[in-house]
Amino acid sequence: MGALAYSMANGNVQQSEGPTIADRDALTKRENGVTSSSPMRLRMEQLIKTHQKEIVAALEKVDGKKFQVDSWDRPSGGGGITCVLQEGNVFEKAGVNISIVYGVLPRPAIEKMRVNHKALDPDVESLEFFAAGLSLVLHPRNPMAPTVHLNYRYFETANADGSPNAWWFGGGSDLTPSYLFDEDAIHFHRTLKTACDNHDRSYFPHFKAWCDKYFRNTHRNESRGVGGIFFDDLDETTKDREQLFAFVTEALAAFLPSYLPIIEKRKDLPYTEAEKQWQQLRRGRYVEFNLVHDRGTSFGLNTPGARVESILMSLPLTARWQYMHEPEKGSREERLLEVLKKPVEWV
Amino acid sequence: MGALAYSMANGNVQQSEGPTIADRDALTKRENGVTSSSPMRLRMEQLIKTHQKEIVAALEKVDGKKFQVDSWDRPSGGGGITCVLQEGNVFEKAGVNISIVYGVLPRPAIEKMRVNHKALDPDVESLEFFAAGLSLVLHPRNPMAPTVHLNYRYFETANADGSPNAWWFGGGSDLTPSYLFDEDAIHFHRTLKTACDNHDRSYFPHFKAWCDKYFRNTHRNESRGVGGIFFDDLDETTKDREQLFAFVTEALAAFLPSYLPIIEKRKDLPYTEAEKQWQQLRRGRYVEFNLVHDRGTSFGLNTPGARVESILMSLPLTARWQYMHEPEKGSREERLLEVLKKPVEWV
Repeated sequence: MGALAYSMANGNVQQSEGPTIADRDALTKRENGVTSSSPMRLRMEQLIKTHQKEIVAALEKVDGKKFQVDSWDRPSGGGGITCVLQEGNVFEKAGVNISIVYGVLPRPAIEKMRVNHKALDPDVESLEFFAAGLSLVLHPRNPMAPTVHLNYRYFETANADGSPNAWWFGGGSDLTPSYLFDEDAIHFHRTLKTACDNHDRSYFPHFKAWCDKYFRNTHRNESRGVGGIFFDDLDETTKDREQLFAFVTEALAAFLPSYLPIIEKRKDLPYTEAEKQWQQLRRGRYVEFNLVHDRGTSFGLNTPGARVESILMSLPLTARWQYMHEPEKGSREERLLEVLKKPVEWV
Repeated sequence: MGALAYSMANGNVQQSEGPTIADRDALTKRENGVTSSSPMRLRMEQLIKTHQKEIVAALEKVDGKKFQVDSWDRPSGGGGITCVLQEGNVFEKAGVNISIVYGVLPRPAIEKMRVNHKALDPDVESLEFFAAGLSLVLHPRNPMAPTVHLNYRYFETANADGSPNAWWFGGGSDLTPSYLFDEDAIHFHRTLKTACDNHDRSYFPHFKAWCDKYFRNTHRNESRGVGGIFFDDLDETTKDREQLFAFVTEALAAFLPSYLPIIEKRKDLPYTEAEKQWQQLRRGRYVEFNLVHDRGTSFGLNTPGARVESILMSLPLTARWQYMHEPEKGSREERLLEVLKKPVEWV
């Protein structure tokens, strides 16, 4: 899911009468700051901004190199911050991106969304919306260290008076090793399970299965990686909004504990030229998933005015496609492919 | 357009009563061989097989290394031959692919195709079809030597008695340099124009514009390369079938003369590490087009039972994505990007 999955409207927004939710939010922030009684939009914006900073700081500490930071504003309100570290000591490419989008949903988009969100008003020509997301992809240099992806997002539409109409949360994180260390997969999933279980014991099994289903290169009948959690469209039919926000807050906070111990353990392992090449082939599969199957990416790329470089920061620095490559019988490479064919329950 | 763009039906074909067109064609071939009075299906199959052999032989002569040749049969009739040369002396990766597909089109596919082909019977639940295509992509090592792509295809549906119902031709070839030599682009287009002009003076301008429109990374507002020709759905509303076959025959024959002089001239030019890296970035754009926009590729990848390795042989051996890469002012790299923004009339 690209971070700009929500740039549904570009700069050319039809303004409705009265203040937009972007105007209202700017005013609220100026007058009161952001507290636990602020609109969810502002709380979510604050949450992802805080985590972007924390994650970037933690990764800079691991890598020793600084991120390049690009901020931009959107004409209709909102904007984004893209942080990219390229050719670092530990990371070949690492992107940590947030975007805050205020815009107007046209009727066809509303009709599509109503399939999952009955709260959406079917009788209007357009609706103001808000979307906030944090998205990251880390591609380490060392083929023994896994790629990791995370995305958390919040979506809201507004009634004409600015009150929230429909809203939902989506998110998750997943791990993509080139060389599989079972203990890494177990640690990653266990950390996420704990975060989930604190909110609802049904979350982890449900979101793990959803992740396995979503991050799949169906054309190769293999998963992109060893999974994690994925969820979307969590709204009032799942839990109330405070409870969901509490869950998202804890799941996001679980990211660094889920990944840092793994990268620390793997980043300096010795590896061969052949192992690096296998990693490059697996990077090719990553590109295939992101460009062929990922709905957020294709949505972003087909949105006029989207910031393409922020969407495609998810792609690895380099990738490789070799015709009819087959790993050796009994090799670690072959075992990975077997695991990717049929997802494993790690915890 | 992937060569397997036509693998619409996989092995599980609903057999109609009586002999299929695959049965009929096998019998005709056995009894009479293929002559100018054979069904167009067999003549097209022969044409693309002959050209695949000629092209492979010519490229082996240029490269000094042999192609790997994989043949396969399809359970419902037809099959394919994929020829790939990887890590050659001249070509980093070169694929020359043919496929012959016999199958059954279900009603929704027929309805989609009727938009362009009114001859298709709207009152049947399914229709037998035949598709034959030759597809090639050559990625040279030397960044001064351009990538080239070609695809020629013929599609036919059959009435219940085996006689042809709707039919059409599609095809074209286009050039994708990392470093632009105007004389190469001019030579390539001039050769294609001559082949087109021999059949209809309106072909070249029309098919050149179609190519520029089709091979475009719309999300970056740039063309994949410097163009060539592209056409699809050429049927009885354009010309009669013999005339179109004669045109396709000549256009295909123009491929080697359009490309060989270019590769000969560029394959041994000196280049720097930085130029090689620019080529890798351009390869990334090639991957983006093929995976995000190319209808043939996405159609093939979404077809159950398709031969993925034959479809994705079009991808380069290696590619690179660098966040916010900008070529230097006044450089050759910058000039290429300018040309790709706004297609040029080369002849």
